Amino acid sequence: MSAAHQAIRTAGPKLAVTALEATGDTSYSACGIPYWVAGDVSSADALVARTAEQHRKAGIDLRLGATATGIDRQARTVTYRDAAGEQVLGYDELVIATGASAVVPDWAVDPRTGQRYAGVAPVKTLTDGAAWLDLLAGLPGGGGRVVIAGGGYIGVEMAEAARRRGHTVTVITRNRVMSSMDPDLSARIEKGMHEAGVRVLTGLPVVRLDVADGRVRGAYTADGELHPADLVVLALGVTPNTAYLDLAELPSGPSGALRPEPDGSLADGIWAAGDCCETRHRLTGTWTYLPLGTHANKQGRIVGTNLVTPGALRFGGVLGTAITRFAVDTTYLEIARTGLSEHEAAAAGIEVTSLVTEGSTASGYMSEADPITVKLLAAPSDRRLMGAQIVGGRGAGKRVDAVATALWHGATVDDLAWSDLSYAPPFATAWEIVQVAARRLADRL
Amino acid sequence: MSAAHQAIRTAGPKLAVTALEATGDTSYSACGIPYWVAGDVSSADALVARTAEQHRKAGIDLRLGATATGIDRQARTVTYRDAAGEQVLGYDELVIATGASAVVPDWAVDPRTGQRYAGVAPVKTLTDGAAWLDLLAGLPGGGGRVVIAGGGYIGVEMAEAARRRGHTVTVITRNRVMSSMDPDLSARIEKGMHEAGVRVLTGLPVVRLDVADGRVRGAYTADGELHPADLVVLALGVTPNTAYLDLAELPSGPSGALRPEPDGSLADGIWAAGDCCETRHRLTGTWTYLPLGTHANKQGRIVGTNLVTPGALRFGGVLGTAITRFAVDTTYLEIARTGLSEHEAAAAGIEVTSLVTEGSTASGYMSEADPITVKLLAAPSDRRLMGAQIVGGRGAGKRVDAVATALWHGATVDDLAWSDLSYAPPFATAWEIVQVAARRLADRL
Repeated sequence: MSAAHQAIRTAGPKLAVTALEATGDTSYSACGIPYWVAGDVSSADALVARTAEQHRKAGIDLRLGATATGIDRQARTVTYRDAAGEQVLGYDELVIATGASAVVPDWAVDPRTGQRYAGVAPVKTLTDGAAWLDLLAGLPGGGGRVVIAGGGYIGVEMAEAARRRGHTVTVITRNRVMSSMDPDLSARIEKGMHEAGVRVLTGLPVVRLDVADGRVRGAYTADGELHPADLVVLALGVTPNTAYLDLAELPSGPSGALRPEPDGSLADGIWAAGDCCETRHRLTGTWTYLPLGTHANKQGRIVGTNLVTPGALRFGGVLGTAITRFAVDTTYLEIARTGLSEHEAAAAGIEVTSLVTEGSTASGYMSEADPITVKLLAAPSDRRLMGAQIVGGRGAGKRVDAVATALWHGATVDDLAWSDLSYAPPFATAWEIVQVAARRLADRL
Repeated sequence: MSAAHQAIRTAGPKLAVTALEATGDTSYSACGIPYWVAGDVSSADALVARTAEQHRKAGIDLRLGATATGIDRQARTVTYRDAAGEQVLGYDELVIATGASAVVPDWAVDPRTGQRYAGVAPVKTLTDGAAWLDLLAGLPGGGGRVVIAGGGYIGVEMAEAARRRGHTVTVITRNRVMSSMDPDLSARIEKGMHEAGVRVLTGLPVVRLDVADGRVRGAYTADGELHPADLVVLALGVTPNTAYLDLAELPSGPSGALRPEPDGSLADGIWAAGDCCETRHRLTGTWTYLPLGTHANKQGRIVGTNLVTPGALRFGGVLGTAITRFAVDTTYLEIARTGLSEHEAAAAGIEVTSLVTEGSTASGYMSEADPITVKLLAAPSDRRLMGAQIVGGRGAGKRVDAVATALWHGATVDDLAWSDLSYAPPFATAWEIVQVAARRLADRL
């Protein structure tokens, strides 16, 4: 929808824009769903940035419940299925923005019905969110047992939501919590979750469910142990919605996601944007699958501009910047990262030196002062920053943006250490902690 | 003291380091004093980063109550005055780090005694802070009238402190509140202060006091109006402590502050760092007087390193990055800036285009969402960012660091608009507000 609006803004109302949307919802914040489930958000409507009516008022022919089923590049047509059956639509320019769907493993599905077992659901769509509100409301207050399969962003956020609602929460992950961070930082997050009463089981995936009468009763880990569960959250990531495409004919990667050029073009008259796409990592130059709303919004805007004004904008790549939090009772952790982790650097063949620095979010004598851990990575060969990971109290997480900006410009650790960042006692120490971390790492290189 | 420690760390204990300090206090946070006065900080001790004993343990011959009175460059000696009289000390390398003193205008001083009138004091030293605690404690609870002369950082922070202690507060400033911001942003801060019950009078300085029995009773503005006052805060900036030097013989500016080279050297065997120095503005290349603890700490470390290992480090200049807040009852404003204001750009002969963007610190459906105003400035000739000013709720201020990092690297507005900054609902909107501001400004260039 971002591409659609931007195209109309750029070309004016003479442009005929048709949008096909498989579901009944458009332009909602998927990232907000865990907070809706937690009770922080008043209603699903609050998560909707623009309603169908608003899209149509802007001149977009929005067709809901219209699932794209294929494209014919020679004929320049899209086929889609709606309530009335199979439809065909011609195009001059086609934007593929079919997004991604939550991974639903075989063990979550009843082979007799092809449906998920009762009490088992992902957290991706507004429908999922509404289901979770009902599922949690059906549990005894404080007495429900929630197992979360997956320890990434959604897993951590749903652990917060379920714990804040008073339930017993177990996170089960094949790797570790927040595996986009290095193990030392993950350990800090796991410790905070433990303190808030969340059981965290790492290194073992859920492999099957214990089910009775079509309803989940527990989850088995790979070691054969049964973890009783009234509800199971599927927080196992997403997979690009590209099955309806002939991927052999379009630039795409092993993830099944498309690989558009920096201007958003994929093939003659075809553009792609959002969670159905891979992106180029700005530091390694390699393709990576990082389906995030921030990239999708930017790519949509770029495609919407470029299909009217070719070459006007270019997507500059991604750094893997991300942020979340885990907040339950008195436990409050902000979690952020950008650039490469040690694992990612190794996979890219980049030698890095890293250092963990402990500090404070504010001057030690202020009540705002909370612990903060900053891990920085740099390449010893040219002293360039390669990544940052941050875990800490209020104000810790958004500090990652200064490092992300430094990374964007190819900064060295010395650049970051000596630049002019802000300080006042409620906000930082006189040597800003990110700069202390850079200075200390610079001394190691 | 930063230079002293760094020199010993770099050279080892063979280096004999003597530090002369005019007062009895070392290494305290001057920036923390308003928060101590407000009651947020338990004691003066909490503001002391390193005690005299700690300095001496590190091997520094620290002499307190020792006021430098002159230097003899040929003889390589410093003269100083202590309780025992005039002393002379030889040196191989001399570091001038005598800092700055609060401006105390003639009207604040009783010509008969040469002392400030009772009830009138600045906010610079620990002695000042202790005096303010006594002065405020001597007022009737909630009934005192405090006039603050000056609307800069200290003026705003002392307005917060006095208001939170329940007193009637009037800020009087010849220019406007936070005049390092542009008028449109200053107006937002003034509005917030008004809402919190602070009277703000702009465009007129305090010109004299109403005094009885050596004690202040009120302050007259230039228009002849009398503003009753039990206490008057002198928040009129600082002036470099360089009167004991022969400035004609040392690189110095019209501010009376020294102008060291980027390596911290000032003349043969002489170095300078901290609030007694001007710094080069990184964007304009011109000398500027920005006496801030962040620069002082960095310069001290650079000088301490370079006087042992010449040329090892260079000070990269300043951007004028700064942050503060105004927090009284339900009013909570974070205030930050970096780079050039419109006024500063004009003074430097740089044409700029600017734009004010209103947004939210978090996704609108989250309770964390507070209004935030971001003003960005850029040069239309090459699209380079030139400055940012931010006023907003919790989490607003530290966003300035991402812009400061962009400025440090000579980024364009396009670089900032399309870079990979962090997003999650409690922390930002899907289009981070700083990037919305950059994108909107990019469209205007």
